[in-house]
Amino acid sequence: MDLIFLGTSSGTPTKQRNVTGLALLEETGSNWYLVDCGEATQHQLLHTALSVHDLQAILITHVHGDHCYGLPGLLASAAMLGRKQPLTIIAPAGVADWIRATQQLTALFLPYTLQFLSVEELGSWQHNNWTVRALPLSHRVPSYAYCFTETTVEATLDTARLAAEGIPPGPLWGLLKKGGEAVHAGRTLKGNDYLLPPRAPRRIVVGGDNDNPDLLAEACATAQVLVHEATYTQDVADKVGDVGHSAAARVAGFAEAAGLPHLVLTHFSARYQADISASPSIDDIRAEAAAQYRGQLWLAEDFARYRLNKAGQLSLVG
Amino acid sequence: MDLIFLGTSSGTPTKQRNVTGLALLEETGSNWYLVDCGEATQHQLLHTALSVHDLQAILITHVHGDHCYGLPGLLASAAMLGRKQPLTIIAPAGVADWIRATQQLTALFLPYTLQFLSVEELGSWQHNNWTVRALPLSHRVPSYAYCFTETTVEATLDTARLAAEGIPPGPLWGLLKKGGEAVHAGRTLKGNDYLLPPRAPRRIVVGGDNDNPDLLAEACATAQVLVHEATYTQDVADKVGDVGHSAAARVAGFAEAAGLPHLVLTHFSARYQADISASPSIDDIRAEAAAQYRGQLWLAEDFARYRLNKAGQLSLVG
Repeated sequence: MDLIFLGTSSGTPTKQRNVTGLALLEETGSNWYLVDCGEATQHQLLHTALSVHDLQAILITHVHGDHCYGLPGLLASAAMLGRKQPLTIIAPAGVADWIRATQQLTALFLPYTLQFLSVEELGSWQHNNWTVRALPLSHRVPSYAYCFTETTVEATLDTARLAAEGIPPGPLWGLLKKGGEAVHAGRTLKGNDYLLPPRAPRRIVVGGDNDNPDLLAEACATAQVLVHEATYTQDVADKVGDVGHSAAARVAGFAEAAGLPHLVLTHFSARYQADISASPSIDDIRAEAAAQYRGQLWLAEDFARYRLNKAGQLSLVG
Repeated sequence: MDLIFLGTSSGTPTKQRNVTGLALLEETGSNWYLVDCGEATQHQLLHTALSVHDLQAILITHVHGDHCYGLPGLLASAAMLGRKQPLTIIAPAGVADWIRATQQLTALFLPYTLQFLSVEELGSWQHNNWTVRALPLSHRVPSYAYCFTETTVEATLDTARLAAEGIPPGPLWGLLKKGGEAVHAGRTLKGNDYLLPPRAPRRIVVGGDNDNPDLLAEACATAQVLVHEATYTQDVADKVGDVGHSAAARVAGFAEAAGLPHLVLTHFSARYQADISASPSIDDIRAEAAAQYRGQLWLAEDFARYRLNKAGQLSLVG
């Protein structure tokens, strides 16, 4: 699974950062999911290889505009580009109401079906080899995280043991991998004896706006990656007051306590400048988080692309 | 008055062209008006010197998304940037309904007042030294052009005559310019005798989507500039069928018949590529229009800036 950040600014866009949008791309290299769709997400897509024809679902964390105002334009452009297959939108009920109102009031005709799933009643949603759960967060309006977990993990043959026992590669290996039985040199071989213990399913937690990371403790206990907002440094958060966001220190402290191997911070206030010689700069957020967290820390940038491999290791690939 | 194009693509954005938005900037260099606000208009503004604090009014030509989906984000960002003064929005009633629904359904709180004026009942709107009228067009949904006309034209002294009569520059000139009387060397001078005939007021007509330019004949008879869509060349328009747009030939033919000195085409279908060696390219639209029109023809690009001076001449200034 690849994570491609389409926007990493909170509230308003800057020249370097758009408002929130995150693409999760399956290993097929085409099927993808979009978590949040701030204004101009479709413009960001023009600079990637992602196609609206391959979009499997859109998941919205909450109703604030910097997370959903790109939806009508994206849906309209998908129509103009000829999309015909239904599109699933998982979102707070208010977002569905807003899209319906937008269709009606702005004469937006879509030649494909929108399948709205209310996040409030989602339970879990299964698609391809991923199971998605929604987890309630704490913000000024109802906000959710989406937890993506691999549904099934493919079996892996113990090729070292097969080689040691002189069982050569071939159709027989395929049979054993499926857990079947086979006869070789007069011996009956059982597939289960030649399968390695299954690896851990991959799990990625993508938070919406949230001032209480502890709400993600259970999901993060078995996750390899948490993507979470770090809107402010603690000093600015203290000045701004209670607006439902997390400071970098808070999120990083949570990730450390949860033993998370990879933490990707995003949704930075526009006051944090890209130029690290400026003040405040994005490096202030990095330094504050790094002081609390010993795992692998990333500060997302627009168009940064991370890959979570089957071993559960996250790396920057573009 | 300067015209700054923020988007020149129809329907969907491209890498080179955003969807529709046009800033009209008063000679003060700060007060400006926005005609149409496609998605990511606020992003385009980041690359100009225009400030949302100086925005006098937003005028929307019709409800289609590529002309209004940037409104909620622009209004939200203006709030986050601290705008307090009321903002006038002139638009079809459906747009006002949509903004109100958006405010309610997406928890969009604005710390300033929106003053909606329904374009259907606008008559004329007067602001600073400009009078704006709305003119009905022909499209798939109700669509309007906005006609900006200078309200008053300042008097100009006939300095050649003053010099010829030996009346020296000074406070006396100011008095005469205001149309007053003054005594000089025993003679009573009347201001009106020393004023040149007033120049023509400047008039700019900005069309919305429209398949019948003739509807603008009366307004264009005394306009110096028409900004109009030319979504297609005629061959493509014939193939696409009746979708409520104008081909370049049609608009250019109208401008020629109307004796318009300056025609600025915009709102080009994304199929017309910027690379003029491609086919179809934006040059196909240019060639088709140039064949019909002998005035000064411009094909707008994003961030192109035109200036209409007091003599009624339009020139590209950036």
